[in-house]
Amino acid sequence: MKGSRTYKYERIADDIAHLIDSGTFRPGDGIPSVRELSRQRGVSVTTVLQAYYLLEARGLIEARERSGFYVRTTLPSTLPEPDISSPSPDPTEVSVRELVTDVVLADTRYPDLVQLGAAHPNPHLAATRALNRTLASVARSMGHRSGMYDYVPGCEPLRVQIAQRALTAGCGLGPDDVIITTGCTESISLCLRAVCEPGDTVAIESPTSFDALRSLDVLGLQALEIPTHPRDGISLDALRFALDHNPVSACLVVSNFNNPLGSCMPDDNKRELVQLLAPRKIPLIENDIFGEIHFGDRRPSVAKAYDDRGLVMLCSSFSKSLCPGYRVGWVVPGRFMASIRWLKYTTTLASPTLSEYAIAEFLASGSYDPYIRRTRRTYARHVGALSQAVRRFFPAECRLTRPAGGFVLWVQLPEGVDSLELYAQARQAGIAITPGYLFSPTNQYRDFVRLNAANWSDEAEHAIQRLGEMIAAGA
Amino acid sequence: MKGSRTYKYERIADDIAHLIDSGTFRPGDGIPSVRELSRQRGVSVTTVLQAYYLLEARGLIEARERSGFYVRTTLPSTLPEPDISSPSPDPTEVSVRELVTDVVLADTRYPDLVQLGAAHPNPHLAATRALNRTLASVARSMGHRSGMYDYVPGCEPLRVQIAQRALTAGCGLGPDDVIITTGCTESISLCLRAVCEPGDTVAIESPTSFDALRSLDVLGLQALEIPTHPRDGISLDALRFALDHNPVSACLVVSNFNNPLGSCMPDDNKRELVQLLAPRKIPLIENDIFGEIHFGDRRPSVAKAYDDRGLVMLCSSFSKSLCPGYRVGWVVPGRFMASIRWLKYTTTLASPTLSEYAIAEFLASGSYDPYIRRTRRTYARHVGALSQAVRRFFPAECRLTRPAGGFVLWVQLPEGVDSLELYAQARQAGIAITPGYLFSPTNQYRDFVRLNAANWSDEAEHAIQRLGEMIAAGA
Repeated sequence: MKGSRTYKYERIADDIAHLIDSGTFRPGDGIPSVRELSRQRGVSVTTVLQAYYLLEARGLIEARERSGFYVRTTLPSTLPEPDISSPSPDPTEVSVRELVTDVVLADTRYPDLVQLGAAHPNPHLAATRALNRTLASVARSMGHRSGMYDYVPGCEPLRVQIAQRALTAGCGLGPDDVIITTGCTESISLCLRAVCEPGDTVAIESPTSFDALRSLDVLGLQALEIPTHPRDGISLDALRFALDHNPVSACLVVSNFNNPLGSCMPDDNKRELVQLLAPRKIPLIENDIFGEIHFGDRRPSVAKAYDDRGLVMLCSSFSKSLCPGYRVGWVVPGRFMASIRWLKYTTTLASPTLSEYAIAEFLASGSYDPYIRRTRRTYARHVGALSQAVRRFFPAECRLTRPAGGFVLWVQLPEGVDSLELYAQARQAGIAITPGYLFSPTNQYRDFVRLNAANWSDEAEHAIQRLGEMIAAGA
Repeated sequence: MKGSRTYKYERIADDIAHLIDSGTFRPGDGIPSVRELSRQRGVSVTTVLQAYYLLEARGLIEARERSGFYVRTTLPSTLPEPDISSPSPDPTEVSVRELVTDVVLADTRYPDLVQLGAAHPNPHLAATRALNRTLASVARSMGHRSGMYDYVPGCEPLRVQIAQRALTAGCGLGPDDVIITTGCTESISLCLRAVCEPGDTVAIESPTSFDALRSLDVLGLQALEIPTHPRDGISLDALRFALDHNPVSACLVVSNFNNPLGSCMPDDNKRELVQLLAPRKIPLIENDIFGEIHFGDRRPSVAKAYDDRGLVMLCSSFSKSLCPGYRVGWVVPGRFMASIRWLKYTTTLASPTLSEYAIAEFLASGSYDPYIRRTRRTYARHVGALSQAVRRFFPAECRLTRPAGGFVLWVQLPEGVDSLELYAQARQAGIAITPGYLFSPTNQYRDFVRLNAANWSDEAEHAIQRLGEMIAAGA
């Protein structure tokens, strides 16, 4: 089902897109200024700006310095979206180790590659320098305490900040509901260990990130791939059917801006997902690592917001939004609190003290909010620019997602083009991409690639042109 | 078997101890100055100093400012050492969770307690401030790179330093032999997961630290407790017998300064241990976290030094020697390299980037060596002072270890005194100690307590007096 709620800015964007489609505004035309449209529609300037960023992200308009927004002169072909996925209906073993090791780990070691591969945030956008200054100052004021263990549940001021911010995602949490971890990978791994035994089956989105797959792989868990819609996320009908026919120990989803789809579950779907799992007593492991990077003006809610039985374990980290190298994530484990505490304690004992306190101070001081607003706008622009380049340079048989957050795109290649062959050719040409093979344990996505828009640049645009030529030649 | 090697300083210390025992030097007498004895015996000043520190640690002599060393006026009673342990000969399930959580985690939260419990290093001795300054400078020079993932195997400059320093422990390593982890707890946990399945049996020292026990507990592994000598460590005869009668998947030892015994395996024993396990293809997980805190002048070797088949996995961290809050450890996994890489990658993805690079720079700059020398001397003095206080204030029926490194003491209480009851009484009086129950999965050590000497102070001395009274009353 589709969510009931559409935001104002989305309606405005859709109206303008319609006017462009119908020829009211033609390539090169200026569209109404932000102030003008704000007055006209009786909405805030921010709302109009969000609408325009969304149109920019869709490749329909462009900003010209000091003169407003214009319909792009070369309107991209409108590549269709991929269909909802239709993976195998049976649980399957997961074995992604070699591909992950050979592709992902290997490519991140070469800074000279054009990095359209691993879903890393843009290191130049990250607040690293400001955060490092905060860390140095926190280190001075903490003195010797900064060198000591900060045992589970970890830094209290940080847990306070996380609980406060969870309100914008619809969650009323206390600091004691939160456990700090060494990044979201640890959070997910602890949750899986808390509720699954080796051999158990976990329902996952299809496609899903290889972060999730490698966690299942190493813990000896089976994956049950559920059809997933490129905009609305996991299909609840399909999930219901799958749960009725398979014993499932947990369900693992990225409810907001799934990697690689960019799908965002409507609020109603999130509520329904929780209601679907609760009577079956199936824990939901919700990965919200991209939730803060929304292009719309409202932060999407989390499924945890609809959880009144403590069956949802909310996992996240600052690695996509702020700074991966600090290794700070968290989990809100609900009724599994005692297990997760023990697992965290026995796995890594404590998280890095200074990292925790520095991020807490960065958030408390108000530095984070303007930073993350800037970052959202930049990623929205980068995703728009990458989308446009794909539309311009890739063959018309391709399909392309329209994410409303995060920073990755998911491209379906023309029939017959194998993403591993494309990967190999691209790698030769100094371009890193992620082949679709990595997003399913059953090789559903041979003809897909994931592209990271975070590091958008002229060089990246040129790389997309090269990729387009390779795809055209291979198709 | 007993190791063949005795160090010069140990012989000198034994000679002086003999002269004190026999009354040649009596309480209050000055003993030969360091220079004098150095000339007399034809050894370096450092060697004599090490001998005197050892005698100080044993509570026999004391330094008086600007006037040399004197036989203590109140010579402690010479509490005997505990006997070699004789645990159950059968593998057993491990279940230490409640005790660890209730005792260890709870007590570390109260800074007002006299902290003789958890084996934390002294926060005021740790190089935290200097290390934090190094970290701030490293952050400035690394810029945005300091915020990014540093994937397994982790920071190369740090792996170079670790490989270089391993030479002093008898190991010829390359940087590529080392994987950086999030502390020694992670190292041990990864090693156990690499070579054991749930239900498997691991041979361990008895007593052993609850760090090891909680790792076995959470992974569902059985413990096979091996008799362990308070000076020479694990009994190889007992281990051989146990291996002949039980299927064992791994052996886990703290070869240098076992926690709580302080035992240090002689070189020959380490070699023999490796030779004993190799033909049986049993991996040795060697925890060397206390190896750098030796009171003698030579850093003891590691069993890994005698490993030519790659069956030894050497684990360590900077948490006892330098700074626990930085969360940086390492593992040298030998032939299990590929498994450990994958496990580390899927468990925590990467270690905290700035922590790694800051420690690498601290080591490379030469700041570490004078720091660790000072720290060793201080801990030797603290252990000596705590030993002396125990001898003075605890009943004569007690027994006491004589560690040659680390910072903990292991005390056997008079028959009938239960360490959990003592723990509860002490806790009421504001004193944290660690009851012996925590060091065996079969409650071998009800009548033992572990005392941490790291934070030695007048307050701690008073606490030992109080404890002595409680023990006397309970005996």
